[in-house]
Formats: sequence, C-alpha cells, structure tokens
Amino acid sequence: MRNIKMILAYEGTQYAGFQRQVNGPTIQGIVEAKLSQILNHPVSIIGAGRTDAGVHARGQVVNFRTANLLPVAKIHKALNSLLPEDILVLDAVETDQEFHARYSAKNKTYSYSIDNGPLRPLFNRNFVYYYPRQLDLKKIREAIDFLVGAHDFKSFQAAGTNIENTVRKVNFCRLEENDSLIKLVINADGFLYHMVRNIVGTLLMVGNGKMTVEKFREIMEKRDRSLAGPTAPAQGLCLEAVFY
Amino acid sequence: MRNIKMILAYEGTQYAGFQRQVNGPTIQGIVEAKLSQILNHPVSIIGAGRTDAGVHARGQVVNFRTANLLPVAKIHKALNSLLPEDILVLDAVETDQEFHARYSAKNKTYSYSIDNGPLRPLFNRNFVYYYPRQLDLKKIREAIDFLVGAHDFKSFQAAGTNIENTVRKVNFCRLEENDSLIKLVINADGFLYHMVRNIVGTLLMVGNGKMTVEKFREIMEKRDRSLAGPTAPAQGLCLEAVFY
Repeated sequence: MRNIKMILAYEGTQYAGFQRQVNGPTIQGIVEAKLSQILNHPVSIIGAGRTDAGVHARGQVVNFRTANLLPVAKIHKALNSLLPEDILVLDAVETDQEFHARYSAKNKTYSYSIDNGPLRPLFNRNFVYYYPRQLDLKKIREAIDFLVGAHDFKSFQAAGTNIENTVRKVNFCRLEENDSLIKLVINADGFLYHMVRNIVGTLLMVGNGKMTVEKFREIMEKRDRSLAGPTAPAQGLCLEAVFY
Repeated sequence: MRNIKMILAYEGTQYAGFQRQVNGPTIQGIVEAKLSQILNHPVSIIGAGRTDAGVHARGQVVNFRTANLLPVAKIHKALNSLLPEDILVLDAVETDQEFHARYSAKNKTYSYSIDNGPLRPLFNRNFVYYYPRQLDLKKIREAIDFLVGAHDFKSFQAAGTNIENTVRKVNFCRLEENDSLIKLVINADGFLYHMVRNIVGTLLMVGNGKMTVEKFREIMEKRDRSLAGPTAPAQGLCLEAVFY
C-alpha cells in the first residue's frame, strides 16, 4: 500500500471542522469522498490537527493509504478539480510507510489574527476577530514571554477535556503588527483543545487592562481553566504549518 | 439640505452591481434603504462609478442630501451597524452643496488582479482572475505604455454602448507583481463601459503570445471592439479610489 502525504489549505467558514462527523460538512469528509471517487476504493485520511468549525488552514497535513497506482501528480490534480473552491491541495507526495500525519508531527504553528481597527473588517472578515478596544501590546508581549518553554497549559485547556498530560512546549510565540491587524504566531510541540483561542482570550484581557501581566502568570501556574479569559472566536485561528 | 459625502468599500460578489435595479440586490439599493431608515425619509445616493455585478470597491464615493440634522458621525456609525457584512462605510463627511460624486470626479483608479500561479486561488478566489497560463510581462508592459495619455479607447468599449466621445486620458497604468499575483493599476479621467476588463482581456493575449505588441497598438487605433480581446471576468476588478 502506498502512503501519500498531502498539504491542504482551506477556509473553515462553511465547515463543521476538520474531523468527519454526521452533522454538517467537514474537511475530512469531503476530501475522503473525493479521494474515494478518484481511487475507486474507500479512503480514510489522517490529519495532523483537528481544526474546529470556522478555523482555517494554510498548511494542514494529511496522509492516506492506497493500492491504486495512479501517479501522485494526477491524484493531486484530480482532487483539486473535484474539491469545492474553499479547499485546496497545495502539495502531494508519496512518502515512507512509517509517516503518520498526526503522530509523526514534531511541532505545529498556528496564527491568530485580530483586527484592532476602528471599523469592522470587510474583505478579511472571515479570517479575523474584530476587537476594536484599545490594546496595550507591550503588556501582551510581556505576558507572551511567560508562554515560551515547557509549561503546564491546563488553565488554557477547554473545560471538561480528559487529557492527563497538559504539559506542552512552546518553541516560539510572537505578536506581529500590520496597521490595524495584530497576529499572534505560536509554535508548540502540541496544543491542548482550544489552547490558542483560550490564550488569546486571556491575552486580550491583559491588553485591555482587565488583567495584570502578573495575574496572567499566576493563572498559568494555578492550572485552573475557570481563572483564564474567554475562548476567542474560531475565525481568527489558522493552522499555518506542521513540521516533521 | 445638507450634502453628505461617503467613501464605501464593498465585496461585489453577492450583488447585481452598484446601480439600483429590480432584479437582485445592489449596493445602491441597500445603502439607500438603510439610510432612509436612519434618516426617516427616502434617500437617493449618487455614486462616482457604476461598478458591475461581482466588481469590488475599496474607495467608491457617493453623496446624498438630507434635511435631517443627525451628526454625520452618527449617520456613519448607524449605517455601518445596519449594512450587511460585505459593505462598509469607510468615511462620511458633510461637504459643499456643489459636490457631485460623479460629475465632480477628476479621475479614478481601478485595479485588476490576476492570479498567475499553478494552483487555483483559495483565500482570495473572489478577488482575482485565475489565469494559470504563462505570461510575458515584459510584452504586457510594452503594450501598457501605449495606453498612457489621451487616446480614443473605442476598441475597448463594450459593444453596443452609445457614447459619442470615447476619448479618455489615462494618467498612469502600471503592472505590479507579488509572487503569483499580478495587478494592473490604472488611473484615468474617465472609463468607458467594460474598458478596464476589455483592456485586461487584450493584454493577456499579448502576454500569452497570441497578439503582438504592434497589433495591440493597431487595435487601439482602429476603434473597433471586435478586434480586441475578450472581456476579463468581473471579480478581478476593484474601484480603488476616486479623486476630486
């Protein structure tokens, strides 16, 4: 069986998330249906990250197995011609048998985009969280510094999640500014459920003066989701890249 | 009566164009309906340019008259809260009585965006014309040079249009490149119907080798629409700015 690796980009707006489910269209469901059509057998894909409803990807990685000998370039082309306009295969290659999109991943980069301008966003409205309140970016950057390194991120994990080991290593985290657009870019060896969105919701409280930087640090140490800020909306989040 | 000038941005994808009409929603129709609701009287707006279905604007200018004394900042805010997410008022000011969005305009800038990459566009798919064939940009630039200045652009006017004076003055026209994105930016004292889209359709023939630069020049001189290239699709076009 050949093992095919693909890089996907998609706009998550119209989907119930990456992972296949009964209610609503999903990225996985659609890609699998189109691949099955091309390869003449049922195909299951494995995704590196299970992005939520409304979350986008510029570099989601998936893999799947097939005995069909159709050249990978043809699979790539056929798939792009069948997929809807909001899903695109950027690359497809045949890879070694051991490769597993999820378990082989060493680290991933997510971005979270905030429009901090006075007017609501127009052209990029599905890709940013509109947050017009004044933000102290210096304070947000101070809080961000506490995130880098190996830490227990339980305070930023969605309540009710059953994951025992909530320690993750953040390799880098930075804030980029471009006019009214503020983008948090974060790379870690793994992410807890809602981790980026909960971090962003809490950082915005630091930025708008509702929480001190010291308090932010305390919340991380207390491992208690109820102390942290709200979950920032899905549409600002994007899976940028997965590294192996 | 106060004369109010506004700058509008919109994504034209879902609209039957700027100009009010019976079939399908229009920018004018929606803005007028919302303004009438805010100001408690029927409002008619005058637009600087009548963008077609699917054409976008980053700097459309409109004006309207009202006896209502509501401060212009309040009109601006109320309008943005009532307008759909794909139309946005960037600015609103009270202006002099003589100002007419269309007749007072000295010149306008349009852009036309082409995605010349190997893969179909994803995130900007409603804002570019996907044209994956190889293009000789040097040749396109040579043809563009013939456009600058005062010329009779009848060859680039939509067939069947009844406009006697088809001379327009192009103040500048340039081609910008950014990775696989190619953008034509053109400023003129006026534009004939479909002029930019017909120019682009013809320039693409120069770029792909189907037409020589000399032939392009000849076509301009012959004042015959049937000699020029096809009309490029609406979604690549954007009214960038209107100058007074």
